[in-house]
Amino acid sequence: MHLMTLYIGASNMERSEEPLTVNTPEIQHSAVPCHPSLENSTMENLNKQKETVFSLVQVKGTWKRKAGKNVKQGMKGRVSAAKIYESTSSSGTTWTVVTPITFTYTVTQTKNLLDPSNDTLLLGHIRDTEQLEAVRSSTKPLKRFIVMDEVVYNLYGSQVTDYLEARHVLYRILPLPTTEENKSMEMALKILEEVHQFGIDRRTEPIIAIGGGVCLDIVGLAASLYRRRTPYIRVPTTLLSYIDASVGAKTGVNFANCKNKLGTYIAPVAAFLDRSFIQTIPRRHISNGLAEMLKMALMKHRGLFELLETQGQFLLDSKFQSAMVLEDDRIDPASVSTRVAIETMLEELAPNLWEDDLDRLVDFGHLISPELEMKVLPALLHGEAVNIDMAYMVYVAREMGLLTEEEKFRIICCMLGLELPVWHQDCTFALVQKSLCDRLQHSGGLVRMPLPTGLGRAEIFNDTNEGALFRAYEKWCDELSTGSLR
Amino acid sequence: MHLMTLYIGASNMERSEEPLTVNTPEIQHSAVPCHPSLENSTMENLNKQKETVFSLVQVKGTWKRKAGKNVKQGMKGRVSAAKIYESTSSSGTTWTVVTPITFTYTVTQTKNLLDPSNDTLLLGHIRDTEQLEAVRSSTKPLKRFIVMDEVVYNLYGSQVTDYLEARHVLYRILPLPTTEENKSMEMALKILEEVHQFGIDRRTEPIIAIGGGVCLDIVGLAASLYRRRTPYIRVPTTLLSYIDASVGAKTGVNFANCKNKLGTYIAPVAAFLDRSFIQTIPRRHISNGLAEMLKMALMKHRGLFELLETQGQFLLDSKFQSAMVLEDDRIDPASVSTRVAIETMLEELAPNLWEDDLDRLVDFGHLISPELEMKVLPALLHGEAVNIDMAYMVYVAREMGLLTEEEKFRIICCMLGLELPVWHQDCTFALVQKSLCDRLQHSGGLVRMPLPTGLGRAEIFNDTNEGALFRAYEKWCDELSTGSLR
Repeated sequence: MHLMTLYIGASNMERSEEPLTVNTPEIQHSAVPCHPSLENSTMENLNKQKETVFSLVQVKGTWKRKAGKNVKQGMKGRVSAAKIYESTSSSGTTWTVVTPITFTYTVTQTKNLLDPSNDTLLLGHIRDTEQLEAVRSSTKPLKRFIVMDEVVYNLYGSQVTDYLEARHVLYRILPLPTTEENKSMEMALKILEEVHQFGIDRRTEPIIAIGGGVCLDIVGLAASLYRRRTPYIRVPTTLLSYIDASVGAKTGVNFANCKNKLGTYIAPVAAFLDRSFIQTIPRRHISNGLAEMLKMALMKHRGLFELLETQGQFLLDSKFQSAMVLEDDRIDPASVSTRVAIETMLEELAPNLWEDDLDRLVDFGHLISPELEMKVLPALLHGEAVNIDMAYMVYVAREMGLLTEEEKFRIICCMLGLELPVWHQDCTFALVQKSLCDRLQHSGGLVRMPLPTGLGRAEIFNDTNEGALFRAYEKWCDELSTGSLR
Repeated sequence: MHLMTLYIGASNMERSEEPLTVNTPEIQHSAVPCHPSLENSTMENLNKQKETVFSLVQVKGTWKRKAGKNVKQGMKGRVSAAKIYESTSSSGTTWTVVTPITFTYTVTQTKNLLDPSNDTLLLGHIRDTEQLEAVRSSTKPLKRFIVMDEVVYNLYGSQVTDYLEARHVLYRILPLPTTEENKSMEMALKILEEVHQFGIDRRTEPIIAIGGGVCLDIVGLAASLYRRRTPYIRVPTTLLSYIDASVGAKTGVNFANCKNKLGTYIAPVAAFLDRSFIQTIPRRHISNGLAEMLKMALMKHRGLFELLETQGQFLLDSKFQSAMVLEDDRIDPASVSTRVAIETMLEELAPNLWEDDLDRLVDFGHLISPELEMKVLPALLHGEAVNIDMAYMVYVAREMGLLTEEEKFRIICCMLGLELPVWHQDCTFALVQKSLCDRLQHSGGLVRMPLPTGLGRAEIFNDTNEGALFRAYEKWCDELSTGSLR
């Protein structure tokens, strides 16, 4: 009796748009959500369940669901891109939320980033013109927390300090030894303690990271965790991070002796690229960066490959500084090669920012190298390990008939010209097998091996067999361990 | 001379779709990206820069950019929803990447979750029918890592074990003391060490969390960091987590003595809600959950408020188990109240999953309570602190003329009926001021205070003044500290 009374009470409830009883106002027999995997389950559900799709409309600050997929934007209020699919069966109700979140970030090539007359470092991330004007005309000092790699701090610390002083910024610079060995959650937490003590506005005061890839990755992770996402800016100071870490969304630290095992996909609000930092990079580290550039060339761009083939030594000698003597960037190899490397990388990353698609050409050189890199740490730099992986894979591609002997030869010669290692004694066949086995396990049961199918062309292969891998390994060792080609 | 030779070389490069020179093939004078903030900068850029928009098309596994915003899906390949905006000026090139990522998750009400004949816990997250069939017909044992709150483990551990044994699952259960005091990154890392040792497939073997909100939040953070995102499942065992933590995307841990200072917005792949867990929850913890339910009622749903007003005691007495004796869920207050609480919560969360919009009705009760909760830990439960915050805010709304005296009285009486505290001596006016000051700082300079404007109606206010806040505070203390209303 008591409950029947309640039921009558419930039917009198005032919210006429949506009564408290479950009966849904409109049943969508053709509910086709934008998420493909949902489509199947919807089809199945229709056989036994009531399915309703709701749009979401905001009126006076309150969101209300409205039955129907195509509720029109209009006078009634703001319509969200999100949808809620409700299905009821005898065992209960299931709500499926489908929400697109739009991520936006910029990668900007600039010059004289640390010149006090250039406000890119402080304001270059602001895309809204009105907001930019408001900040520029405000007398309130800006506040910035900056993490710098220790080595970079020794080289550029005073320049950064002078820049911030000249622009009257309230700042704190935290120099840290951001090496691969220190790339840990502990260091991310240490950064966050300092950030927390310093105090920043989580929307308008981005954390700035200045350094190599390790520094940018750790700061990226720290920022993406702080208040569930604080904007951050990447300023790469090495060639490798200039064309690699700065372009994508990945953040991360090592964990349990595994490379980048913990991390997020939160892109920086902006990456500011100034090639002049590269002039203080040791020659070996420039080769290191050239390995990732070569990766993009081999996978996607024959022109870039040929440029590296002919101009590799010039790029190493000039440390990517040659643009300074030229009027027109377009005819300068440093400028052209970095631009193409970034453009090809963005092409692959932008459509797959969260790596939902496991088939990734940019994984070339990254199937065996993580294991190798962690095993011999710190003997090999990241790009060096990547290059050893790529060199072996070139032999695999040759063994599978994807490359001619001449193409193989040209690629290996190009690698040697870039002063990169093409073989390593610790890269045993057991390590190759273990790496590919791990890959199989973590890539939905397929090995998804990107392999060159010519110069500047590639495809993903799943049908590699142990025999071919082993023959390629033997040939690789035969030809490159003793140095007949070297 | 040397460089001129290169330039000639570059013009011979083979990739005809996109020559190496920067001159862009098509300039979009009406580039209107989907991101509003970009529109302004585009307009500005047009005055001085070349701006090109690129779509991304995948052919044979390789993504290529094609100038133009409206490249059609077609025979040529798959077109991505992502866009790249390229603008060049004298100082360099800026690429702006705009990528929508679609997040999908389900919230499922179910019964008998731990009955071995029910496969929801193991397979309920699979939305693709084919995949579901494949898993169901496979003889390969499933593998699951499960984190349980220690107290929940003592109550349900053997049932969970029996369930997993009966279904021949390879499993590891990790019981942990997931209290508010232990809600730290250290505990998240501890979980990850165990997960890593156990070994799971990052796509197909979701981590399962069974417990209250703290447990679900920590596991959610751990899972979202592992390999940059490992699916996880939430099984709430308290009323509070049933209607709150399970419905949204937030994960988190406390840091530097601040509540949920570190975290992510990664929703579980599925949340499975079984009300039978609530029968073992102490009465005080049911009140605790009712506070969050009351929040949704006050902000959005008069019907729910009236139900809590009349049926609060019945819900407390019956521990939300009453449905069992009824044929039809619709007339049962436990069923109706939880359903409406979830629906109203999803309405507010789905369009704002990453909290890009800082105006949030669901923040009601959460402006002052985090500070209060951390200050008196563990004296107040989360919902109790929230209720004290809401009670004060009701006085603020009354002071501002948004509520009548009768409405205020009804709300406070309802709170008392739910056996929730409506005042606390440690909630000083200084604490109120500090909390609102922090809020101002972290919400883009506006206080964004959700306040009831009637029963089940609310708006966001930014124009509250110190005087009104203080008068409300005095009145609140006058009426509720000594208990004239209690």
